[in-house]
Amino acid sequence: METQGGAGQDGSIGDWATCAADPGYRAAVLDLLGALAYGELSAFERLADDAKLAPGLADKAALARMASAEFQHYQLLHDRLAEIGADPTEAMTPFVEPLESFHRVTRPSDWLEGLVKAYVGDSIATDFYREVAVRLDDDTRELVLRVMDDTGHAQFAVDKVRQAIEQDPRVGGRLALWGRRLMGEALSQAQHVVAERDALSNLLVGGAEVRGFDLVEVGKMFNRITEAHTKRMSALGLSS
Amino acid sequence: METQGGAGQDGSIGDWATCAADPGYRAAVLDLLGALAYGELSAFERLADDAKLAPGLADKAALARMASAEFQHYQLLHDRLAEIGADPTEAMTPFVEPLESFHRVTRPSDWLEGLVKAYVGDSIATDFYREVAVRLDDDTRELVLRVMDDTGHAQFAVDKVRQAIEQDPRVGGRLALWGRRLMGEALSQAQHVVAERDALSNLLVGGAEVRGFDLVEVGKMFNRITEAHTKRMSALGLSS
Repeated sequence: METQGGAGQDGSIGDWATCAADPGYRAAVLDLLGALAYGELSAFERLADDAKLAPGLADKAALARMASAEFQHYQLLHDRLAEIGADPTEAMTPFVEPLESFHRVTRPSDWLEGLVKAYVGDSIATDFYREVAVRLDDDTRELVLRVMDDTGHAQFAVDKVRQAIEQDPRVGGRLALWGRRLMGEALSQAQHVVAERDALSNLLVGGAEVRGFDLVEVGKMFNRITEAHTKRMSALGLSS
Repeated sequence: METQGGAGQDGSIGDWATCAADPGYRAAVLDLLGALAYGELSAFERLADDAKLAPGLADKAALARMASAEFQHYQLLHDRLAEIGADPTEAMTPFVEPLESFHRVTRPSDWLEGLVKAYVGDSIATDFYREVAVRLDDDTRELVLRVMDDTGHAQFAVDKVRQAIEQDPRVGGRLALWGRRLMGEALSQAQHVVAERDALSNLLVGGAEVRGFDLVEVGKMFNRITEAHTKRMSALGLSS
């Protein structure tokens, strides 16, 4: 099995066929891809919604472009789930409620809040992908890195938010509060998911080898993501 | 100029470079591409909105897929406008209000109304493209035919609406009324546009050669589109 999957080489744990022989690993990857797929579909919906708040046609089109890019990512994840014999809808279902809860309590009240949310959401997702990518088999990692590809949120949002703060520094205070709230709510929902999805949690903290749920390791991962968030907010002129 | 543009051959009126030398023709094509571009951006928004009404994740994803396809069309039209030296936002602006008025008075109250609206809107747009394509220069026609490419609305909507009528025939009566209202509002907004955009109207009724606005010809075109709509509604089990 090691030679077939190339396990160990370059820190690789092997290819999908090799790793998926372990039912726990397979379940974890189905969870991961299901969570990512629903995350992308949900991001599509929110960005399309935010497009309505755009102050002009060019901005509206920019948001619509990002929404379409998220949908293309969704499609890749969906197709991969189908390819490995999973039901995409079933794989996504456990993550609908946590994500919708997050969106319900973090509805942007204007264009700038929408941009900050898109930026923060995208950045947290990217951090999370990076954390998890190293623990994945080669095939799944390749897919995850592909959908993590920047869809252009970051620079667009950063430019617009900076402009707005320059024009009216008070905007910065309001958006800093908003960024803090987004992070708090995201962590809260993530804790729910971690508590309920054992296979996924095991994967997050130790890869296929580690058994037993390690709350301390999960906490450390959340801390790393929070730190990265704080740095980004400061760089944006928002002290979080 | 005729040999350069290949005018007359296969009913062709020449290529863009040849035809655009006429400022009236150029203005008409900018109007047409602007109207189509905003139409696609607007279709993106409505489909993304309708995705929220979907009864399940697979249906939601199907609508999101269509919305993304509309956005790709928008991008083609936007890029073409920029390529021929027009400001895409300026070209779209005259059509924002008519289209938004249409959408304001035809907000679907449920998933099936949204599907019928997507189907009717797509079909009318296709009929309209077909009417106008024969009057265009080769380059513009090629683009128009490309964005007219079916985005999958038609069959998806037809299947879902048929299923719903089979399960509850009363649904058919309600949706037939809805289809009639959609067509009435679409015609009303189209009349506004025709009355206000001379260059575009000239193009619609007679190509670059015909000067002077011909209300009778516009009326005939609307009648052909209405007839096609009526036939489609009947085929769907909805007597309009």
